[in-house]
Amino acid sequence: MADHPRAPIALLTSQVHRLHKNINTRLQPTSDADITSVELEAIGDELHAMATRLFPICRSVTGDGVRETLQIMQESIPLDIVEVPTGTEVFDWVVPHEWNIRDAYVKNSAGKRVIDFRQSNLHLVNGSQPVQQSLTWGELKKKIHSIQSQPERIPFITCFHKDDWGFCISQTRYEELEALGEQTYEVVIDSVIKEGSLTYGEYYLPGESSEEILFSAHICHPSLANDNLSGICIAILLANRLMQLPRRRYSYRFLFAPATIGAITWLAQNHNKLDQIKHGLVLSLLGDSGHSTYKRSRSGDAEIDQIVEHVLKTSGEPFSIRNFTPYGYDERQFCSPGINLSMGCLMRTPDSEFAEYHTSGDNLEFIEPAFLADSFNKCHRIIEIIENDYSFINLRPMGEPRLGKHGLYESLPADTDQKQFQQAVQWVLNLSDGDHSLFDIAVRSQMDFSVLLKSTCALVNCGLIAQQ
Amino acid sequence: MADHPRAPIALLTSQVHRLHKNINTRLQPTSDADITSVELEAIGDELHAMATRLFPICRSVTGDGVRETLQIMQESIPLDIVEVPTGTEVFDWVVPHEWNIRDAYVKNSAGKRVIDFRQSNLHLVNGSQPVQQSLTWGELKKKIHSIQSQPERIPFITCFHKDDWGFCISQTRYEELEALGEQTYEVVIDSVIKEGSLTYGEYYLPGESSEEILFSAHICHPSLANDNLSGICIAILLANRLMQLPRRRYSYRFLFAPATIGAITWLAQNHNKLDQIKHGLVLSLLGDSGHSTYKRSRSGDAEIDQIVEHVLKTSGEPFSIRNFTPYGYDERQFCSPGINLSMGCLMRTPDSEFAEYHTSGDNLEFIEPAFLADSFNKCHRIIEIIENDYSFINLRPMGEPRLGKHGLYESLPADTDQKQFQQAVQWVLNLSDGDHSLFDIAVRSQMDFSVLLKSTCALVNCGLIAQQ
Amino acid sequence: MADHPRAPIALLTSQVHRLHKNINTRLQPTSDADITSVELEAIGDELHAMATRLFPICRSVTGDGVRETLQIMQESIPLDIVEVPTGTEVFDWVVPHEWNIRDAYVKNSAGKRVIDFRQSNLHLVNGSQPVQQSLTWGELKKKIHSIQSQPERIPFITCFHKDDWGFCISQTRYEELEALGEQTYEVVIDSVIKEGSLTYGEYYLPGESSEEILFSAHICHPSLANDNLSGICIAILLANRLMQLPRRRYSYRFLFAPATIGAITWLAQNHNKLDQIKHGLVLSLLGDSGHSTYKRSRSGDAEIDQIVEHVLKTSGEPFSIRNFTPYGYDERQFCSPGINLSMGCLMRTPDSEFAEYHTSGDNLEFIEPAFLADSFNKCHRIIEIIENDYSFINLRPMGEPRLGKHGLYESLPADTDQKQFQQAVQWVLNLSDGDHSLFDIAVRSQMDFSVLLKSTCALVNCGLIAQQ
Repeated sequence: MADHPRAPIALLTSQVHRLHKNINTRLQPTSDADITSVELEAIGDELHAMATRLFPICRSVTGDGVRETLQIMQESIPLDIVEVPTGTEVFDWVVPHEWNIRDAYVKNSAGKRVIDFRQSNLHLVNGSQPVQQSLTWGELKKKIHSIQSQPERIPFITCFHKDDWGFCISQTRYEELEALGEQTYEVVIDSVIKEGSLTYGEYYLPGESSEEILFSAHICHPSLANDNLSGICIAILLANRLMQLPRRRYSYRFLFAPATIGAITWLAQNHNKLDQIKHGLVLSLLGDSGHSTYKRSRSGDAEIDQIVEHVLKTSGEPFSIRNFTPYGYDERQFCSPGINLSMGCLMRTPDSEFAEYHTSGDNLEFIEPAFLADSFNKCHRIIEIIENDYSFINLRPMGEPRLGKHGLYESLPADTDQKQFQQAVQWVLNLSDGDHSLFDIAVRSQMDFSVLLKSTCALVNCGLIAQQ
Repeated sequence: MADHPRAPIALLTSQVHRLHKNINTRLQPTSDADITSVELEAIGDELHAMATRLFPICRSVTGDGVRETLQIMQESIPLDIVEVPTGTEVFDWVVPHEWNIRDAYVKNSAGKRVIDFRQSNLHLVNGSQPVQQSLTWGELKKKIHSIQSQPERIPFITCFHKDDWGFCISQTRYEELEALGEQTYEVVIDSVIKEGSLTYGEYYLPGESSEEILFSAHICHPSLANDNLSGICIAILLANRLMQLPRRRYSYRFLFAPATIGAITWLAQNHNKLDQIKHGLVLSLLGDSGHSTYKRSRSGDAEIDQIVEHVLKTSGEPFSIRNFTPYGYDERQFCSPGINLSMGCLMRTPDSEFAEYHTSGDNLEFIEPAFLADSFNKCHRIIEIIENDYSFINLRPMGEPRLGKHGLYESLPADTDQKQFQQAVQWVLNLSDGDHSLFDIAVRSQMDFSVLLKSTCALVNCGLIAQQ
Repeated sequence: MADHPRAPIALLTSQVHRLHKNINTRLQPTSDADITSVELEAIGDELHAMATRLFPICRSVTGDGVRETLQIMQESIPLDIVEVPTGTEVFDWVVPHEWNIRDAYVKNSAGKRVIDFRQSNLHLVNGSQPVQQSLTWGELKKKIHSIQSQPERIPFITCFHKDDWGFCISQTRYEELEALGEQTYEVVIDSVIKEGSLTYGEYYLPGESSEEILFSAHICHPSLANDNLSGICIAILLANRLMQLPRRRYSYRFLFAPATIGAITWLAQNHNKLDQIKHGLVLSLLGDSGHSTYKRSRSGDAEIDQIVEHVLKTSGEPFSIRNFTPYGYDERQFCSPGINLSMGCLMRTPDSEFAEYHTSGDNLEFIEPAFLADSFNKCHRIIEIIENDYSFINLRPMGEPRLGKHGLYESLPADTDQKQFQQAVQWVLNLSDGDHSLFDIAVRSQMDFSVLLKSTCALVNCGLIAQQ
């Protein structure tokens, strides 16, 4: 990250603050509620640069790869790095032994590494037992994984729940080795599996309310970019921007933990905090070129579900909404019946619906700055709604007020879309009746929340509505 | 109107009365519940004749054009003409100065009127200040409006909220004048803007219940036919027919006022009467060849919404249903949050969705008798449901009754559609359980309300059901 | 039936029992929850054989045809045959005279039967008065019915509610007779209409709960196969299988009565039992090649409606769902407002939507073993859900349990679809929260109930969930 200086994008910071403040004070509404395309471009570059820096690290469920990742993240946000010892009981599970890997290779009789962990950490089955032995090709190839249908890609394979080991190579490489016939190879896996700990990162940002919004991204995958450096980097940048706000309406919690056992460990150790969680999102697969996909929370109609759906619907781009299923990412744990948080999952193309999933094809070329930035922008809009969903009362509710006489239009920036502004004004006036919050008005009008917010600021400023 | 004698169509009168009476008494059901095509043709001609008489008058927000219009309407219904003085405060607004126009023209140096208000009152920007001056073409053309995309049509333009003036001509005429080059013209607008009053018309028809149904049509447009002579004429004829009924279940109020300020003025001055308004309709744009469009009330599921939707759905013709928006006609005022009446808007093609809107193309050829009659017929069906939505109880609810033995079929008119009648009988018997009104049964069965009503009369007459 | 020995299909018997028992005990789940295709083939053959045996009998609203039919059914199930005397008042109706027919024909002058009841009982208008007279062709043909659009088929016509008689022949035969010109015919209808009784069959199977599931099939049609030997035979086989169960959760009642008057008679005489009826199905038209159609109960969202819809939706085949209407089969009576049972109607192609309806085309070729078996299978799945819809509680609700450690997979049969099993396990764990029954989980997951049931058995057996 040091060699990728962060662009000075204080946008989210100033914006959420400004909008929030507008509503309670008499600032002029401004026309830059949205992130501009230039700003988005810089955000995309910053996110891709973060992912590029984290990409080579060999993360796993436990071990130094996770620690190194979290330490780099500490450059952006003051993350707490938490170690939970091997053997700790976490609900129905136990924290496993820690796995670390120094080197792994297969050498031919000439001493040349024909499979080399140092070239790609995907070459080793993640979680492999230590091995040092000589094997014939006939023996070795039983431990080798490749993908016939994608001959140039290395698969990503794990073996955490059984004592095993293996290597992953491209089908092309496999066939080259096969062509060499029955030779003897030296197989070395210099891994260590022993008592240690499971490591996760957590960042808690207090707000005016102790009610929390939880963002969670899994950090257990080695050199895969979309799954889940995309989610990790967007969460880091959201946290970084939110922490720079002088005030936040809600508290925010960012969790970076290994999938399944990491989420379960955090839940087990923070069970007393769950009542504070208003809702949240699992962030994953946010950098590919597919359209945005939202998987609803377990209840299906939680506030977070409605907010994300509104953001996607008003984005003007294709999107998918899916019902909750008890398989997928850590929403499985957050939405288990005893936990039952209102958490959905924001993605682009869902796992196993793109060929690159869990292969070396999920690399830094597969995620693109523009798509990362678009996903960030959607998260930003979601937070904008969460922070600014207040209710107002129309102070001139009998018929329409005569807008001109109240000076509504006087201070509008020159670039305001007058027709859109006017429609937003009419919606806010019509539904500010004590029964509709600003978000309710957005849903009903199908208008962009930012536009309604700007009109709301103008209406507050000229005294036509007041916060309820 | 004197020279367009009204055809003796007492249809609505007799019909609503008869059906209503049937239910409470033992009259024979008759087969002419619907308006026949011959009657509809006469209604269409009558409506178009009314519009033809009112078309030339230069109506505006205030002034003698509105008064003359209302006085002609008094020939059909005993309308109250109400004058509200300039300066009267009406909610957030003030009744403006009254505008009257005697003449307006542009003369060339030869003394010929090259633009003449007497040829079409659309030639003058409605609400123009008085003017008497000489202008070069270069100066004059800045005050002239035309439509490039519709070169033969004169636009309809207003300037009520600013001190201004102007003329409207066809693009073709504009180009002819442009071709004449820099000449000097005498510009005269003989308008008067001074203290006076805002004028509206109101007709209240008491019924057995003090609950009211409100119909409203705006009357502020000069020579435009669809917008809104169509709505005005249909409202007149509905009122005329309703007033001839010996009894009405509900009270009816018909309001003819200038848009926005007129509706607001009426609301401000009749605020104490609003609790009596059960629901109602804004009537506008009812004569063009487009299909019927209903814009729902603010709540979206008011009784009036369900009734109009049922009428459109069972009409066998294309139709559109639209959700409420806070822009459009006077439903904006009736559905403002402090008023919040259950009022939708019945139209054919909505404003600004037809090219003739607010141009000289919206003329007497643009509205056709058949479409006016169709709109009237739909209003009539709506009133039929409102007046006749009673609940009945099946007196033989255990299994189906043996219909023949009760004489159900004995008095049926020969032209009854037996299968349809039979199905309606079965629906009424099945759902007359204390939980469903006749309209509920219509919605559930998707049958025409008139057919159900006829079956209901027959079932009442033979003692199989009784009013709840 | 004697010459069509029943195949030893104890499938439904053992299956419902086994599944039911599994849930409450610790039996191993088995993989054969579904009826296999071999078993279905045998069921189809058995159903068609039953229909073949019953087909020739001349059933009517009353009389010996119904009695003979019910007596043959007694070979399969211990049916009560109930006689209700002529003149008995049943709600708004009266049990009619009994009609019996010995012979009917039209003979030409040569003594040859040109129309002969013995060739097809459809040749006689069902319910005809006794006749013995000579008629010219000109007189006779006024009493003859044929179908011009289906020249080879004999129509099925009745005349129960009026004193009349008639014959039905194919249009081809009609034209042959017409071509013979004016001849004299001897017309004989050897029918007897006199005091007697209306006959229906009823079989009540007690279960652990006194709450009943009612299946009803009309038995008043002569030689028509789909309408309703299909429904009758499926009901017999369901009853036969259910009676062999050592225990049933619910009680079951099977009613075989003539349409309309039979259902009304049963309702009138069993009015005190109706409170026990939880819900049920009218079975008719279940053997043709069309897809399954379900007509909802009067409320439209009764439990039976949801269950049947789930079975059809997860069948992987086309299907139709229709709203309740007060016309059709005996759901008209069961869903009359004073009775209001939760009963829908399961069919394939609805009546009057296939050309063979009420003609000699509705014969034993028109119904096929495969379609009868498919309809039976759907009934079986419906009963499977009714019997097994229990609620469970996840005993490890905090995060997902570690499934392997509980031995979940150890006893799975080799042919288990592992991925489907795993998904079902996750759904059952996630929604076993006290708010969702197994059927709720099936609806939400859109998974096959049988698969969820198997996973539920495994989860109960390994102690991860417990019955609520």
